Amino acid sequence: MYELTIHLQTNSKTPLYEQIYRYIKGEIREGRIASGEKLPSTRALSRHLEVSRSTVEMAYEQLLSEGYIEARACRGYYAARLDGLYQLTEPDTVKKEKKNSDGKKYEFDFTPYGVDLKSFPYNIWRRLSRECLVDDRAELFRLGDPRGEYGLRNAICSYLHQARGVNCSPEQIVVGAGSDYLLMLLAAIMGQGHRVALENPTYRQAYRLFRNLSYEVCTVDADDKGMQMDELDRTGADIAFVMPSHQYPLGIVMPLRRRMELLKWANEENNRYIIEDDYDSEFRYKGKPIPALQGYDACGKVIYVGTFSKSIAPSIRMSYMVLPEPLLQRYEERCSFISSTVSKVDQIILQKFIEEGYFERHLNKTRALYKNRHDVLLSCLKEIDADFTVSGENAGVHLLLHFHNGKTEEEMIRSAAEKNVKVYGLSGYYVEQDKEHKPQKDAVILLGYANMGEESIRRAAALLAEAWKE
Amino acid sequence: MYELTIHLQTNSKTPLYEQIYRYIKGEIREGRIASGEKLPSTRALSRHLEVSRSTVEMAYEQLLSEGYIEARACRGYYAARLDGLYQLTEPDTVKKEKKNSDGKKYEFDFTPYGVDLKSFPYNIWRRLSRECLVDDRAELFRLGDPRGEYGLRNAICSYLHQARGVNCSPEQIVVGAGSDYLLMLLAAIMGQGHRVALENPTYRQAYRLFRNLSYEVCTVDADDKGMQMDELDRTGADIAFVMPSHQYPLGIVMPLRRRMELLKWANEENNRYIIEDDYDSEFRYKGKPIPALQGYDACGKVIYVGTFSKSIAPSIRMSYMVLPEPLLQRYEERCSFISSTVSKVDQIILQKFIEEGYFERHLNKTRALYKNRHDVLLSCLKEIDADFTVSGENAGVHLLLHFHNGKTEEEMIRSAAEKNVKVYGLSGYYVEQDKEHKPQKDAVILLGYANMGEESIRRAAALLAEAWKE
Repeated sequence: MYELTIHLQTNSKTPLYEQIYRYIKGEIREGRIASGEKLPSTRALSRHLEVSRSTVEMAYEQLLSEGYIEARACRGYYAARLDGLYQLTEPDTVKKEKKNSDGKKYEFDFTPYGVDLKSFPYNIWRRLSRECLVDDRAELFRLGDPRGEYGLRNAICSYLHQARGVNCSPEQIVVGAGSDYLLMLLAAIMGQGHRVALENPTYRQAYRLFRNLSYEVCTVDADDKGMQMDELDRTGADIAFVMPSHQYPLGIVMPLRRRMELLKWANEENNRYIIEDDYDSEFRYKGKPIPALQGYDACGKVIYVGTFSKSIAPSIRMSYMVLPEPLLQRYEERCSFISSTVSKVDQIILQKFIEEGYFERHLNKTRALYKNRHDVLLSCLKEIDADFTVSGENAGVHLLLHFHNGKTEEEMIRSAAEKNVKVYGLSGYYVEQDKEHKPQKDAVILLGYANMGEESIRRAAALLAEAWKE
Repeated sequence: MYELTIHLQTNSKTPLYEQIYRYIKGEIREGRIASGEKLPSTRALSRHLEVSRSTVEMAYEQLLSEGYIEARACRGYYAARLDGLYQLTEPDTVKKEKKNSDGKKYEFDFTPYGVDLKSFPYNIWRRLSRECLVDDRAELFRLGDPRGEYGLRNAICSYLHQARGVNCSPEQIVVGAGSDYLLMLLAAIMGQGHRVALENPTYRQAYRLFRNLSYEVCTVDADDKGMQMDELDRTGADIAFVMPSHQYPLGIVMPLRRRMELLKWANEENNRYIIEDDYDSEFRYKGKPIPALQGYDACGKVIYVGTFSKSIAPSIRMSYMVLPEPLLQRYEERCSFISSTVSKVDQIILQKFIEEGYFERHLNKTRALYKNRHDVLLSCLKEIDADFTVSGENAGVHLLLHFHNGKTEEEMIRSAAEKNVKVYGLSGYYVEQDKEHKPQKDAVILLGYANMGEESIRRAAALLAEAWKE
């Protein structure tokens, strides 16, 4: 019989049973109570420690349920046999890393990823959120439809039909927490063994994601109409990832003929699909918006992916995809058990935001805002005395300058940086594997303007004019 | 030269340019303007239609940008060559399906998936949400840290350390929209070629998810201590998915010895890992909570997954995982570009909810609530005159009845249903592939009580006593 002399503190905040439990646990972990050794009975230990028997019983029960001790019928309690199994030492805590920013602070930043958040209708969002939390109560916190709330999908469906020419029913829509997530979900729906082709240069986030999602990934050069069809054919890909309404980063609108060729390509094999990423088609400053490729698809070949990140705010984490009929069936079979990734409260706020007309108003407001910035930037660029042409204007929130002055991209970026202006080179959007094979002859610079006020654009452009004058 | 006679409606809400654009687009789509055919010049058409030239130019620009027409230098506009490429017909809209419920309405439902939502602190949640939306404004809608906001991860880290004995730093925590999503992300972090072992019976959602995520999946029988180690060895799996604190559906607490064996197994090969799903460990009605397996892990082998679905509400969609050091590095390299799936607003509400002590209070409140229901159910079960034993009590929100009366599970479920009470059979939790090989000898019934008030439990148990009396 093992004698346990535990120094109990009766005036401690820790209950007596827990002090006993902790002591014995420590002794077993440290090996001072050997594995397999018999422990005193609850009666003996309670007498020894002068505590009630139920106190000791509670301690033993806890040790039992965690497995430090074992009960043997009619014989009592024994320390569990743990030795040699595994080292019970405390691991080192992971060192806290500090994220270093790249150091340099810029006065102006033409980031192509910007979104103007000053125009976000905070008061409306807050009111809708308040209303929503008053309304439904319990129902609001119950798990919802895996595809997203029907009301929201219905609102998105109407919007897509009117604004984007997308042809679908709410049943085809799956709402998810961001486009990255939806592409992950799509990979689970499609299963393995696919080969995805992306344009080069492309949205590198999508490229990296596909690579991590058990797809084979390949790139296809883009000409001035987008993905080149003969190259696509050669890749042997069965999925084409495109941004027909406004290619990122090139700003190309894919013309109808190329779209039809792409649909024809998809139609030639049963398993071919097109992923249409329609990430910022809301912003077009000349003419009507270009309808989505999905609207031309008569054979269920296009998976349409859209987002509210650009049109409302990046942090609200709401995107959606429209599944064509064959994939909708696969979704039902394989993935419809996966819970929605967007909270019901957020879904209902967004539904009201769309249904009550705020979304349209917000879009009109930001479109006008971005158009002004776009126009100011274009007119300021005329003042720059350097040999370049502009492309990708009239849509989105960035444009491209193609220089023909023999300077390299690095030189252009560096001379802008010396004036405290951050600009972005196109070469960063080429996928690494191909970068060496296709050196940019001329410098191509991206300028995003969503994040900059008109006055900032004027001042930054004046600095660029100084930096780049020849 | 093609003559276009368009019947323009000057009093229409549709602008003239759009009427012209629509007409020509329709003619090209229908083939009435043949592909390659020359269109009238803007000057000729404007004269012909008696509209301004700029009106026609706008229409042509839109047609150009969508690719319906092509411009040839010095020669004018031509209908694009689209014929033979693809059928431009409108697809049928997907038929709206109606979801059929299984028909039968029950008076009482002992669902093991329930959560009590009446006790949810709506007013506090609403107030925190309001405060949060007043505070930060723009910053709140900017894209946040892919792993989740540091403040929230810090709050989770402290909670996990104190309440679950988890040993980690906030840097190791990744917040995500639900455990399903986190398992998807984990698959992207780990890459392909893994073989996951799950206990059988298990949480079938996890099983189905792993199967869809390019893992090989296998099952390992559970004895009364959880996953059987010799069977695990035989499977050749390199990942073990376990719920050591409270196995679902069996309600087993894995004792320390089995935990050590599992850690030892993981340590034997470089690439072996344990996924610890700690889904409802907050609810334990006897003794202290069982510490997490992660807390014993000295070698970076355990991926700890936890959720607020059970402890706060299913629809808030917030879970988290703790990555061990080797996987944290892989996450940084492969997946840290994937945006967070939880909106910043929700993260900050939750952070305040934890930091200001509401979470702890809510947990204490629901724990007391569930304990009462658990106790009432246990005492009511004593009144049932049938040969069964209870297991899985003292924790979680469900328990199991093992019958020894020769009746089948179906018979027990059916006789309960005849009294309008829905109960659940254990066989539904066995993974299909193995179901035939392991017929349940005795009926095992799951009763969940989170969703039922004490009075309902009494009434439902009385009905079960009638249904099952022998």
